[in-house]
Amino acid sequence: MSKAQVLVIGGGFAGLAAVKRLSGRGVDVTLIDKANHHLFQPLLYQVATGGLSPANIAAPLRSVFRSKQDVTVIKDDIQSIDLADRVAHGRRGQYRYDTLILAAGGEISYFGHDEWRQAAPGLKSIADATAIRERVLSALELAESTRGERLPTFVLAGGGPTGVEMAGAIAELTRQTLKGEFRHIDPAECKILIADPGDRLLAGYPEKLSDRAADQLRSMGCEVCLGAALLDVGEDFAVIGDDEHQRRIPNAVTVWAAGVSAVKLTRTLAGQFGAELQHGGRLPVEKDLRLPGVADAFAVGDLASFYDQDGDPLPGVAPVAIQQGRHAAMNALRLAKGKPTKPFKYRDYGSMAVIGRGAAVADVGGWQLGGYPAWLAWLFIHLIQLVGFQNRLLVATQWAWNYFTRNREARLITARRDS
Amino acid sequence: MSKAQVLVIGGGFAGLAAVKRLSGRGVDVTLIDKANHHLFQPLLYQVATGGLSPANIAAPLRSVFRSKQDVTVIKDDIQSIDLADRVAHGRRGQYRYDTLILAAGGEISYFGHDEWRQAAPGLKSIADATAIRERVLSALELAESTRGERLPTFVLAGGGPTGVEMAGAIAELTRQTLKGEFRHIDPAECKILIADPGDRLLAGYPEKLSDRAADQLRSMGCEVCLGAALLDVGEDFAVIGDDEHQRRIPNAVTVWAAGVSAVKLTRTLAGQFGAELQHGGRLPVEKDLRLPGVADAFAVGDLASFYDQDGDPLPGVAPVAIQQGRHAAMNALRLAKGKPTKPFKYRDYGSMAVIGRGAAVADVGGWQLGGYPAWLAWLFIHLIQLVGFQNRLLVATQWAWNYFTRNREARLITARRDS
Repeated sequence: MSKAQVLVIGGGFAGLAAVKRLSGRGVDVTLIDKANHHLFQPLLYQVATGGLSPANIAAPLRSVFRSKQDVTVIKDDIQSIDLADRVAHGRRGQYRYDTLILAAGGEISYFGHDEWRQAAPGLKSIADATAIRERVLSALELAESTRGERLPTFVLAGGGPTGVEMAGAIAELTRQTLKGEFRHIDPAECKILIADPGDRLLAGYPEKLSDRAADQLRSMGCEVCLGAALLDVGEDFAVIGDDEHQRRIPNAVTVWAAGVSAVKLTRTLAGQFGAELQHGGRLPVEKDLRLPGVADAFAVGDLASFYDQDGDPLPGVAPVAIQQGRHAAMNALRLAKGKPTKPFKYRDYGSMAVIGRGAAVADVGGWQLGGYPAWLAWLFIHLIQLVGFQNRLLVATQWAWNYFTRNREARLITARRDS
Repeated sequence: MSKAQVLVIGGGFAGLAAVKRLSGRGVDVTLIDKANHHLFQPLLYQVATGGLSPANIAAPLRSVFRSKQDVTVIKDDIQSIDLADRVAHGRRGQYRYDTLILAAGGEISYFGHDEWRQAAPGLKSIADATAIRERVLSALELAESTRGERLPTFVLAGGGPTGVEMAGAIAELTRQTLKGEFRHIDPAECKILIADPGDRLLAGYPEKLSDRAADQLRSMGCEVCLGAALLDVGEDFAVIGDDEHQRRIPNAVTVWAAGVSAVKLTRTLAGQFGAELQHGGRLPVEKDLRLPGVADAFAVGDLASFYDQDGDPLPGVAPVAIQQGRHAAMNALRLAKGKPTKPFKYRDYGSMAVIGRGAAVADVGGWQLGGYPAWLAWLFIHLIQLVGFQNRLLVATQWAWNYFTRNREARLITARRDS
């Protein structure tokens, strides 16, 4: 009897966790991703602000699974899936499966304002991060060239973890790292503005931590604008506000940190199973993480919509993705042995966001931490989670360096624009 | 009396050496570069083959001169210079000077075949290196997707140090690093071909070292094609040979390592001084490194054409650039004090090229080394020359890691093509 073929689409947290659980357990695993690397997204904002190099937070997928002979890695971009025929169609090839684990994740969503993509890039891939890094640094170079006439204001549209972390990192960059490097401007005079339409930052966190994060950002010189959405944006301006009050910000360098939806691939599945797509194109899943009415396809991570016991949707964070990836793999193995699946239960160990050097907020096991203790916890947890020992070593070295020198050596402008 | 204004154009080896010598000596220095970083070009091939990250071999210019209050760094692309009026015209501004040091370096030259630029990229900037890295890795991914039907052949057009180092690094990548990472192809079966129209590799080195380099490359599985120039190239083929014999290479991934000329800026100077432009648009210079008949403008490094006592032109290598940069700075300071300039003399400490893990050739002070000793000398000399202590630390860590694991973790495909 030939081995069951399990196809995992997506090499993010969920897909990686699934493949690790499947390997060595009697099935053949194929992992497909459109990139050639796994990306540790929680640290992407560090690349966008010159604190880390892309390779520090990425691991080539082939390298991760080199020694696993039952794992085949393929670089391809899946365009559609036929659930009845059990085949996935990519740009380069077609992939048959016995069991499918969909873990292709999310993508930046502009809520119908796709025209903002150019002027307000989001932060999802390495290319996004280096593009934002280039934009931030080039704006400061332009300000220096114009002797301060065009001093930029940095606008973070969205008050979730990405917005908070980027605001903090830009504050560090402009207030500390670049001190003394310019002759005609003082980068510390650049405004930093974080805007969110809600009534607090970090809406998914306990309220006390939201207040703490806002206080810490303010103490670093950031302006926190609540009840304010991004209303319009162009190459050198942004408009934030609500229906009544609007504020136009000249020389704005805007980063979109407001929305993520499931990848477009999910839309090719609409109508192929017994339910509608959920908010943001997310796939509805049963308690065992299978698509409704589909015996051999699981959906996990940011492209799945799962409701916990209290009826709340699980957030799109790494711990959910990792636990779901593992659980779907376990259920896939049970199916291969003819056993019934088990329902998924999320174990919430807490959440954290970093604001700057020695400043973070964390909610761990009911404990709420701020400042230095939260920051140390953040450092430690992110270091041990990085894939690859070398990455851990290099990132630890780089962080220690950045900490003691307040420097960010990876702040390169590398785009081809000039050449 | 106001201080003399010295303008240095170019932040490569020559420009950096000049600014370092000028700072703290009673003149005002302005350094202009189109990039925001100094690039350690001798290690660029390591970025192109995934051994190092761009930030490992680049240092932000503002960071290098942060503490030098008499140095102003400007990011601009100089378009023309008016020697009589003593003003340089950039895209963003105009820059008046009392003394000029031209150190803008070279650029890739296709000897009239500019249409090859797309299919056979050269290696000069970080963007070039990451583009070549993407091309090399994507070719292997395509070969895996087609189950070996389109196994690439890597073609290095040019047998100078860049061609030799790239050939060696690609051999390491395909023969060692990637071992076991593919399921349908064996990357070690990819051909690597280094072509040079001359009768030996490393034409500027002693003949014994040329032979050694060719032997070492052959032992690593590279084919050395002498008397063969690149005749034509496209997205997936290359033609090498001479007038009589031609060889068409299918599925070729070609890197252009054959030609460098002075930057185009030098052509705006033609007719402004008392001599013709030299080979490749290089600027002729007097013995004291000034442009012929121009009292206040020096040209140094790759854009200058300087003949030594024996009437041979100095090669376009880092030691020449560094010594010339320093010397021009010293002469500029002498001019500012009303003293006569001194003639430049090049002190040749030797040359080296690395071929792979534990393999290099070196000609140092009349000693000719090969293999492991040459490789250790190469490592040591390149490490101590890297600008910035952190870069040295990270590169040493990365090299030690690469050495013991035979791995290259920076092999990322980061282009936007897929997104």
